[in-house]
Amino acid sequence: MNTIKSYVETHKNRFIDELIELLKIPSISADPAYTQDVIDTSAAIKASLEKAGCDHVEICETPGYPIVYGHKHISDDLPTVLVYGHYDVQPPDPLDLWESGPFEPIIKKTDIHPEGAIFARGACDDKGQMYMHVKALELMNETDQLPCNVKFMIEGEEEVGSESLAWFVERNQEKLANDVILISDTGMISNTQPSITTGLRGLSYVEVEVTGPNRDLHSGLYGGAVANPINILAKMIASLHDENNHITIPGFYDKVEDLSAEERAEMAKAPFSLEAYKNALDIDAVYGEAGYSTNERNSIRPTLDVNGIWGGYTGEGAKTVIASKAYAKISMRLVPNQEWKEITELFKTHFESIAPKGVKVKVTPHHGGQGYVTPIDNIGYQAASKAYEDTFGVPAIPQRSGGSIPIVSLFEKELKSKTILMGFGLNSDAIHSPNEHFGIFNYLKGIETIPLFYKYFTELSKELED
Amino acid sequence: MNTIKSYVETHKNRFIDELIELLKIPSISADPAYTQDVIDTSAAIKASLEKAGCDHVEICETPGYPIVYGHKHISDDLPTVLVYGHYDVQPPDPLDLWESGPFEPIIKKTDIHPEGAIFARGACDDKGQMYMHVKALELMNETDQLPCNVKFMIEGEEEVGSESLAWFVERNQEKLANDVILISDTGMISNTQPSITTGLRGLSYVEVEVTGPNRDLHSGLYGGAVANPINILAKMIASLHDENNHITIPGFYDKVEDLSAEERAEMAKAPFSLEAYKNALDIDAVYGEAGYSTNERNSIRPTLDVNGIWGGYTGEGAKTVIASKAYAKISMRLVPNQEWKEITELFKTHFESIAPKGVKVKVTPHHGGQGYVTPIDNIGYQAASKAYEDTFGVPAIPQRSGGSIPIVSLFEKELKSKTILMGFGLNSDAIHSPNEHFGIFNYLKGIETIPLFYKYFTELSKELED
Repeated sequence: MNTIKSYVETHKNRFIDELIELLKIPSISADPAYTQDVIDTSAAIKASLEKAGCDHVEICETPGYPIVYGHKHISDDLPTVLVYGHYDVQPPDPLDLWESGPFEPIIKKTDIHPEGAIFARGACDDKGQMYMHVKALELMNETDQLPCNVKFMIEGEEEVGSESLAWFVERNQEKLANDVILISDTGMISNTQPSITTGLRGLSYVEVEVTGPNRDLHSGLYGGAVANPINILAKMIASLHDENNHITIPGFYDKVEDLSAEERAEMAKAPFSLEAYKNALDIDAVYGEAGYSTNERNSIRPTLDVNGIWGGYTGEGAKTVIASKAYAKISMRLVPNQEWKEITELFKTHFESIAPKGVKVKVTPHHGGQGYVTPIDNIGYQAASKAYEDTFGVPAIPQRSGGSIPIVSLFEKELKSKTILMGFGLNSDAIHSPNEHFGIFNYLKGIETIPLFYKYFTELSKELED
Repeated sequence: MNTIKSYVETHKNRFIDELIELLKIPSISADPAYTQDVIDTSAAIKASLEKAGCDHVEICETPGYPIVYGHKHISDDLPTVLVYGHYDVQPPDPLDLWESGPFEPIIKKTDIHPEGAIFARGACDDKGQMYMHVKALELMNETDQLPCNVKFMIEGEEEVGSESLAWFVERNQEKLANDVILISDTGMISNTQPSITTGLRGLSYVEVEVTGPNRDLHSGLYGGAVANPINILAKMIASLHDENNHITIPGFYDKVEDLSAEERAEMAKAPFSLEAYKNALDIDAVYGEAGYSTNERNSIRPTLDVNGIWGGYTGEGAKTVIASKAYAKISMRLVPNQEWKEITELFKTHFESIAPKGVKVKVTPHHGGQGYVTPIDNIGYQAASKAYEDTFGVPAIPQRSGGSIPIVSLFEKELKSKTILMGFGLNSDAIHSPNEHFGIFNYLKGIETIPLFYKYFTELSKELED
């Protein structure tokens, strides 16, 4: 424990500098303009894993962006931890809302991060959290306390659906064989109250296109006489929720399991201030499905949100036009048991069925993934819990998250192992938003906590064998 | 008559070339990036009026873009025709739907225009139609048959609400004194069936902004728990029409006059093929207010259309974001008696009132104008009717148009004279759309017909005096 703390203390400035270098590369997987940057980032990850002490590192080509694989093997008799992370990032726009360049990392102090936070796209999601694992390996290696085997699998398409990862995992089950999968790509309640994510929502992401007339029309000459694709799209979107904010797609809730009163009561114990929540977002009221609390709405309930909408004239001033086409990107967060491909089909069928005459509708599925619930009675969860308690001084709380890491249920299916979600980010870190940041405290605390997970996981594995 | 036809025949290539030069200047009044081009266009108009034979031409400065004023005075005993037109154009976007550059005019044949049409932004609306008047003056001047006084007032802000024109007209009533106002900024039924526009709709154009959380949020962490401004905007827009496509804004229809059964029967006589209309737009059904025909919906009934909508992530691929803000541009076409400023207020009050808790709504009025109905029992209308009959060989049909020229009702109020809307465009000319064009036939026919209007108007004026 002391060697861990002192190693971090000695090397922390270098740890921060190395992360800052990594954050400067705009590895935006969604935008083909950044292809070379994404590839450059995979090379940087490879180099960092080699430097941290892996025996073997390789860039594995896939149909999409490469996956960086690395391992350090000690003994066949010891357990193996597979670390997963991603080196790609979300697009940074809207750019005008960033206070500093998204790929020009700077350190600033905030109320929540009095020790400073690194501001940059990917600082928390996931370059910062992924790099904690690289530095934790370096630490364990340099201080000679790596207690087990470790494998790394760092991908470059997490923000666009992890298609190539699925392809890779299916084809490399032996290479990826492990006893537990460890991921830091989630958050915790606060810097004084760690938590371990035990549930993730699934996702179905689609794009819709509504076409009316075959060309843009003058709204004076045609207004009122033809279906306006924007008005129709608005009507169709509006109809996807009823007056209680339930989703109206037939069959959508068929596989949603209601939590028991006990489980909901347990959830309600997590510290939460509605006033602080509203103040942080500058809203006068929360909004959501009738009959559920805010924490339930964003974790155990499925949702449907429009992520983007566009059509017609959006420039300066006024243009009296009826657009030929209107578009929206729509995503649904799903709960365990909801099959994402089935939900995508239900959406498509329903959305096409509600289009009035006078327009044509096209629904294009983007990507998706299954929801997941981690049981808390396995040694992976227990090892994480003990590690957090050691470094934070208080026990971690299990928590369901509203986010999605679609690949987790695939790991369980293909690799037959449980995933432990040890997140060190905070909700206020603005991931996917302008001014994303990651606390220096959180980054260093992660590097300290991860080696303890290895220690406890190896110990608990031995106990199981005995 | 013969001198008119032969003059047009002799000079038609030059008339076309001159218009093409004018169309090359991107005088987009809505976009500040084109300020110098708009100003350059006013200078080009001044030069063309001088060349056509005006005694006096001046560029009149205003709080916005300049107005080009010119006149040719023959005698105080003769009537005066005031020609109005505009030299600004609509923004050309979406650019990718243009088959040739919007400011690189080319002549192409189409089914409707076998003699060719000039394709360019502003070809019909309104540079082409305005320039017919310049060339008609040249013709009358050169062939010594201008029968009365003529004034020109060509503005540069018609596509953005004509604010400076209102300012100018109020301050220059004596300068602008006239017996009739002549405008070519509308269309006719077809190249074999001329029509004169006797009614215009008014307009109220607003922009709305819906703000939810103070920053873009991750849709997994916040989805379902806060009001999503795009979903809310869609809901609010959808609620502006009921199931019969009536507009739901309280008070909106209070001043709308229902036409008598006779008037509607008269309107229904205009040649119209619903099949041809649907085929031209590639739609399987028309769409609009229950209880009204297509021609009624786009002329005698008020409407509400979204002209543009945007919010969230609209780039390539997927981004799981809840946007902080969503926007729409919304315009209402109004019928005579509906007061546009009152309607704008009704919209604002209603739209703000339907915003749910959890979002803030801002409504910004852009511009607007009154609807107008021209009586057909005045000598201006009769002169136009005789002129069309001479050149087309069939009588022109009076027709209400769905478009708006907000300034027309201001002219009546400030200048106490009637406006005659002698349009030569066709609905299929794609004004305000990509690939706007204006038939060579229509352009030359306009130059031929306008001098006859002057002739008949002067004759009928004398008869009135006798």
